[in-house]
Amino acid sequence: MTKLSKSLVLRLIRYLRVLKKLKTLGIVNVFSNNLGDAIGVTPAVVRKDFSLINLMGNKRGGYNIDSLMAALREILGNREQQEVIVVGCGRIGTALMNYREFDRDGIRVVAGFDADAAKIQRDAAIPVLPMDELPAFVKANDIEVAIIAVPEEAASAVFEGLIHAGIRGYLNFTSLDLKCQGHCNRQSCPRSCTVHNVNIGLELENLFYLIRLEELKILSSEELGVQNEL
Amino acid sequence: MTKLSKSLVLRLIRYLRVLKKLKTLGIVNVFSNNLGDAIGVTPAVVRKDFSLINLMGNKRGGYNIDSLMAALREILGNREQQEVIVVGCGRIGTALMNYREFDRDGIRVVAGFDADAAKIQRDAAIPVLPMDELPAFVKANDIEVAIIAVPEEAASAVFEGLIHAGIRGYLNFTSLDLKCQGHCNRQSCPRSCTVHNVNIGLELENLFYLIRLEELKILSSEELGVQNEL
Repeated sequence: MTKLSKSLVLRLIRYLRVLKKLKTLGIVNVFSNNLGDAIGVTPAVVRKDFSLINLMGNKRGGYNIDSLMAALREILGNREQQEVIVVGCGRIGTALMNYREFDRDGIRVVAGFDADAAKIQRDAAIPVLPMDELPAFVKANDIEVAIIAVPEEAASAVFEGLIHAGIRGYLNFTSLDLKCQGHCNRQSCPRSCTVHNVNIGLELENLFYLIRLEELKILSSEELGVQNEL
Repeated sequence: MTKLSKSLVLRLIRYLRVLKKLKTLGIVNVFSNNLGDAIGVTPAVVRKDFSLINLMGNKRGGYNIDSLMAALREILGNREQQEVIVVGCGRIGTALMNYREFDRDGIRVVAGFDADAAKIQRDAAIPVLPMDELPAFVKANDIEVAIIAVPEEAASAVFEGLIHAGIRGYLNFTSLDLKCQGHCNRQSCPRSCTVHNVNIGLELENLFYLIRLEELKILSSEELGVQNEL
């Protein structure tokens, strides 16, 4: 199989999400422009993506949703591993532990971890455990993905510890950009990992500046409008 | 002044953030490779960005941090408007209302809004007000940026209402992709706006798939590694 670029994979995942929703509405066929609208790309990009994975549409009828979903699932695989831990159980961490929309995406938070003894709750529906139990928990439960919601000061050390524990995917809510090179440069990194940084303060700062620059009309217009996270 | 692309502006904002931190450490000069490392681009991109805004470094000494900050501030402007409202005061919304790291970025949440009468708290340090008071509040306080943290079902209607109220920048935490075209197609849109979607479920789903595909070695390696929100 030819290798897929990460940006293509991220689009394929989004097509699949949209297709799932269309299917629940009883829709059978879909056109490239509908899918393009839904994920914010041109119909030409949609058609090119699908031809890359050997899927052809029909000019009159569009793409059959079931075949498309089957083909996408064959490439992307079934996500067997959908369990995630939350590290740092402050306000944001606790909110994410109880985020009800995860259910819809088949994602389950199985535990929280915190350095503060006062926050430990072993008997809660989603237990909060002490940090020193994290490596054993990750190993025993084969956890691969963690949400980091610790204070900025702790972010770097916590990240280091999670890498050692074997976590490979990170959703980082701290304001520190965490980095993990593809095949990691650090001696300490056993495997490669992927980090998605969600820096809320930076996001807001971007909005303030963009609004101002747009008002002054010094933003080039072609790049205005929606900015997705991808 | 020549127009700036949005991607350039987003990088300039990040340089400025890094420079502020370096300055607090007492550092006087900085090289393009340091700045590149910090924001995840090559030194060549940094130098090109700075030459676009007429800033030249010195091969031996690098860039002077003060001059660089002054030049960036001249282009980006001082953010006078730093007040934001939170719409939807569930767990995520409440966590964001009390997000302590906003202080550091000079961002202040001035009010929350919720459709649930039980959540109204007029006397709290950051008041929670009913939705129908939003338009008047936005107008009276000249609010331009909102964080949306309502349930997915309510997202679309809430967004529509905020556009009418005059909000121009959106940080959207719902799982619905909100879109506002540059110079908006909708009749209802008084001005253009900018939306940043932070779809937490999608972000996690991406991580699960990317880990799996990487394990199967069908991701092309050049795109692996850090993925920033920009």
